Amino acid sequence: MTGLRIAEIFGPTIQGEGALIGEPTVFVRTGGCDYRCVWCDSLHAVDPVHRQSWARMTTDQVWAEITRLSRGNPLTVSLSGGNPAIQDFTALIARGQQAGYRFACETQGSVAKPWFGDLDTLVLSPKPPSSGETVDWDAFDACIMAGQGAVQTVLKIVIFDDADYAWAQQVAARFPTLPLYLQPGNPQVDPAQPVDPQDLSDRLLWLVEKVTADGWFAPRVLPQLHVLLWGNKRGV
Amino acid sequence: MTGLRIAEIFGPTIQGEGALIGEPTVFVRTGGCDYRCVWCDSLHAVDPVHRQSWARMTTDQVWAEITRLSRGNPLTVSLSGGNPAIQDFTALIARGQQAGYRFACETQGSVAKPWFGDLDTLVLSPKPPSSGETVDWDAFDACIMAGQGAVQTVLKIVIFDDADYAWAQQVAARFPTLPLYLQPGNPQVDPAQPVDPQDLSDRLLWLVEKVTADGWFAPRVLPQLHVLLWGNKRGV
Repeated sequence: MTGLRIAEIFGPTIQGEGALIGEPTVFVRTGGCDYRCVWCDSLHAVDPVHRQSWARMTTDQVWAEITRLSRGNPLTVSLSGGNPAIQDFTALIARGQQAGYRFACETQGSVAKPWFGDLDTLVLSPKPPSSGETVDWDAFDACIMAGQGAVQTVLKIVIFDDADYAWAQQVAARFPTLPLYLQPGNPQVDPAQPVDPQDLSDRLLWLVEKVTADGWFAPRVLPQLHVLLWGNKRGV
Repeated sequence: MTGLRIAEIFGPTIQGEGALIGEPTVFVRTGGCDYRCVWCDSLHAVDPVHRQSWARMTTDQVWAEITRLSRGNPLTVSLSGGNPAIQDFTALIARGQQAGYRFACETQGSVAKPWFGDLDTLVLSPKPPSSGETVDWDAFDACIMAGQGAVQTVLKIVIFDDADYAWAQQVAARFPTLPLYLQPGNPQVDPAQPVDPQDLSDRLLWLVEKVTADGWFAPRVLPQLHVLLWGNKRGV
């Protein structure tokens, strides 16, 4: 069976994190991932146990849903997952950009695709030690090379603890010219449970105090605004 | 008596709103303002009744405090107020940029200054009808002209109600090439009172739903993150 594996398409809402925070966005969340981060907040798009809930859609069908949700008004489309880089979005990006839409992609940087170079924003989010995954830096470098044609490439790193923080500093030293966004990790990823806003606030404050105490002013520090506002609710 | 009128210098913390949200920043809040917005959240830097609490500082003294707080590590300095545009920051900006610091300025756009052109980020925040003030568009245009040399000029508009929202759409139509940031107004500005995070969250959601319902995807929509996280606490 062919076609794109799509876990959900939703929006428009605002992007809740990173370089495009606040930007009206339609999200195309793809199904399938080559990683299994222990704190994954999107297991419904990652774990093959949910595979039955993923739609097989043609590029035409995905594009029709994007234009329906946005009512034909161009905006930013975010390709997220799962890992969208394991699929081919060349045709969707070309179709959308022709109509004035912009495309962002969020990926861990484990698989490089030629279509990275067609993006408006390539967000590479290498996973820190707390994820349980190990970054293949050759593959990561290949992603950066593939994204050379993108309007912008940025780094986003999730920080759960001191080890993640130290690791982020090493990553920053490796890529000094790429804009870097840090965000505190969210350990409360069960959609059936409410999140504790005080805990999220405390985690952001902890991270702000780390960078300011260290005089490390290169990264921007941002929360997951959507979680702060709406918890783990899906579709916002 | 000469020198700069300074209400407070604080940080580093993260910028809580607008184009530079999340950016580690030292804030130089100036004393004095030509506006009296009814919902002003910085009356301690605006109302002459607080004038005795404003320091008179030389450029050297302000710069010494910025370097002390940032421990000599370059970061973004935000000139806010009050209205910083009623004073002369030419020398401070030159001194700081020589040392690798970046400068942003937040002003309502009522007074143009040549030093706007030296800024890294000029944030023009025209005040909507709910403020009780009326924008002088000739003065505002002069601010945009004065900022031509800045790295970026952006618009930020606070939205309290439907009238403000309709007004923001007119402003956006007038300046289609300037990036626009919308933020919900905060009616809870008494520093002695706690804020209601649910009310702030509801106001952001209302604004997100307005732009998405209208298919108005040009502006970014962001909260005042510092208020959401830390209420009206000063110095963060």
